Amino acid sequence: MAVIINENYLLIKSNYIFSEINQRVEKYQNDNPDVDIIRMGIGDVTRPLPRAVVEKFTEAVQEMGDAKSFRGYGPEQGYDFLINEIIKNDYAPRGIDLAPDEVFISDGAKCDTGNIQEIFGLLNTVAVTDPVYPVYVESNVMAGRTGPMGDDGRYQKLVYIPCTEDNGFVPELPTTPVDLIYLCFPNNPTGTALTKEQLAQWVDYARENNSIILFDAAYEAYIREDNIPHSIYEIEGAREVAIEFRSFSKNAGFTGTRCAFTVVPQELVGFDGEGNPHSINSLWNRRQTTKFNGVSYPIQMATCAVYSPEGQKEINESIDYYMNNASIIRNSLENLGLRVYGGINSPYIWVKTPQAMDSWQFFDLLLDEAHVVGTPGVGFGPSGEGYLRLTAFNTLENTEKAMERISKLNL
Amino acid sequence: MAVIINENYLLIKSNYIFSEINQRVEKYQNDNPDVDIIRMGIGDVTRPLPRAVVEKFTEAVQEMGDAKSFRGYGPEQGYDFLINEIIKNDYAPRGIDLAPDEVFISDGAKCDTGNIQEIFGLLNTVAVTDPVYPVYVESNVMAGRTGPMGDDGRYQKLVYIPCTEDNGFVPELPTTPVDLIYLCFPNNPTGTALTKEQLAQWVDYARENNSIILFDAAYEAYIREDNIPHSIYEIEGAREVAIEFRSFSKNAGFTGTRCAFTVVPQELVGFDGEGNPHSINSLWNRRQTTKFNGVSYPIQMATCAVYSPEGQKEINESIDYYMNNASIIRNSLENLGLRVYGGINSPYIWVKTPQAMDSWQFFDLLLDEAHVVGTPGVGFGPSGEGYLRLTAFNTLENTEKAMERISKLNL
Repeated sequence: MAVIINENYLLIKSNYIFSEINQRVEKYQNDNPDVDIIRMGIGDVTRPLPRAVVEKFTEAVQEMGDAKSFRGYGPEQGYDFLINEIIKNDYAPRGIDLAPDEVFISDGAKCDTGNIQEIFGLLNTVAVTDPVYPVYVESNVMAGRTGPMGDDGRYQKLVYIPCTEDNGFVPELPTTPVDLIYLCFPNNPTGTALTKEQLAQWVDYARENNSIILFDAAYEAYIREDNIPHSIYEIEGAREVAIEFRSFSKNAGFTGTRCAFTVVPQELVGFDGEGNPHSINSLWNRRQTTKFNGVSYPIQMATCAVYSPEGQKEINESIDYYMNNASIIRNSLENLGLRVYGGINSPYIWVKTPQAMDSWQFFDLLLDEAHVVGTPGVGFGPSGEGYLRLTAFNTLENTEKAMERISKLNL
Repeated sequence: MAVIINENYLLIKSNYIFSEINQRVEKYQNDNPDVDIIRMGIGDVTRPLPRAVVEKFTEAVQEMGDAKSFRGYGPEQGYDFLINEIIKNDYAPRGIDLAPDEVFISDGAKCDTGNIQEIFGLLNTVAVTDPVYPVYVESNVMAGRTGPMGDDGRYQKLVYIPCTEDNGFVPELPTTPVDLIYLCFPNNPTGTALTKEQLAQWVDYARENNSIILFDAAYEAYIREDNIPHSIYEIEGAREVAIEFRSFSKNAGFTGTRCAFTVVPQELVGFDGEGNPHSINSLWNRRQTTKFNGVSYPIQMATCAVYSPEGQKEINESIDYYMNNASIIRNSLENLGLRVYGGINSPYIWVKTPQAMDSWQFFDLLLDEAHVVGTPGVGFGPSGEGYLRLTAFNTLENTEKAMERISKLNL
């Protein structure tokens, strides 16, 4: 007898991409201690928490120090005071009705998008766009839904939906039936978005094929164009086929503070082996109450201030600031003759590598010659090969400096 | 085609016990709106965060509001500043050497004890003490390791190790081989503890049988007697066979703040199907980096203050306060002729029901007649039938009032 590990973990081929980047950057910095490296790789924000958030956060921390206002365990699903703010501000104005028990507060969209697959059976066919946020893929590898990776860099049982220059980064409907579909729009990593009509095709597909869409809307705050849906529930019929993930990381700067939420409409059903329907909302509720203990009370209070007029004002200023960076990146690289995507409804810019370089070659070139860190597109999937992701989250000063350095390269 | 759910969820027989209690209490309160109910059911603290913790927490929140000191994503494993405090204060003084990469900061021991099973294969035999903290069992039910529940109230493939009056609540070594063993001492729910000699028998068993012990030490701060180990690593050889879970919930009042940690020594190995060893530490690191995004920076800073002299002073006062409640509960109930366990090295008191009542009968009696809420022992497993758990976490005033009310019952 001996303890057997979950062997699916052995199927994961790469290091988590951001760790690999960190290692290369650290090595370069150690070898070149005087070089000032500008990081435009990880999608991490740099602007501080809004003042309104800091104030509310501080107040709530003081409450925790007084026996009269102290809070212990809260509801695993989150406090109603925050859930109601979310419904009132993010959904009701777009004509979307949500009940409080359809919104689950969590400590991150990474956690939720990683954990959601637990409530589904192992035999479902899973589709992902390619390139894709690695968490969707790797959480399914770990669970045993994907099988091993083939020589083509694709997990054998996963359905990949390429998003490339050829199709304008708009995923085409699958030609074989799929059960679970991960969609992230505005997209990480390509920075491209879907129009309402384009997303409606996916909702219709899911309704016709009894599929469920796992819709990651973490970047909705960056949408600048009309006709780009902020929530999948703006599409008719989506309540019956879609779970939506949202985060406060990228709008309110919560990457180091941790708060997010997931919407699971009551209409959503999955089936057991005998064909009986079961509420997906109940399953997720069961998962969360058993394995999660709710988000810190002061953080939930702080998050409420995201929706205050002062909070909204500062958040909009920060997003404008980042989107100005995005424009600078787009324009600079286009002026160099590079082909550039994203950066219009998203903080991500997706650059086609020049001179037929592969992603890591271009990564190393930018690191070595311009001391700028991007993210190799191939790290997000086979169809990301030949691209590199840059983010608009650095300071204006660093963004301008990075573009100046890149402009001097012979690309 | 249709989405298939994880059918293992359908094997879970009961509502999560605390939800069931809440529903009964809510119904009673609605039917009797004037009655003042005293809750001694859920193991939730009532004393506020220590002042030193509030101060550090507040400072860190202010840092997040300033671009110069703002922090985005931190290491998924936690910041070294906190990991080093933990090692220096909780382990080094007991002669236990830990490396920083053996300590993983998280948002709760509930999450960690629920998630840890993911890194192990589905064919391992799992043993739990009975009664038991439900999360260990239900996370394994959801994963598919237990099979359905039999008529005896036991999941068919789970090994139950009874802890009852008959064996003095000391679990006996299994007679059939087991791979993963959940132990929680001081125990939730029985409040009893193991001596070093008793725990050493389990470490020896695990070493001889290549098992891994999942040791939940969430209540170590309540240990009052010598010769009760605070960490399983006080036992020789435990680094090769044990993972330890700790929490700041019950010592520092973090139930609503959320911070905990898990120790995974580098020596621990599991095996793949071909008999090759793999590092358990690496697997857990992989799980956490893929599906978790670290604990909020201000909370990790606040947690450091738990170890400051001022923090320790206040924490000790709070624990003394709770343990005084525990004495009052023990003495009052013993004076009524009840058989009472725990409450000496633990904030939990485990009461044998009088007059051969079952757990829920005694629960209803205390709720209806004394307006006191306990936790029915049977909710923790079949061997908990005929017991009720009371906690020492209420105020002194409420604890005394509750005992006064119970004393007037005809038990």
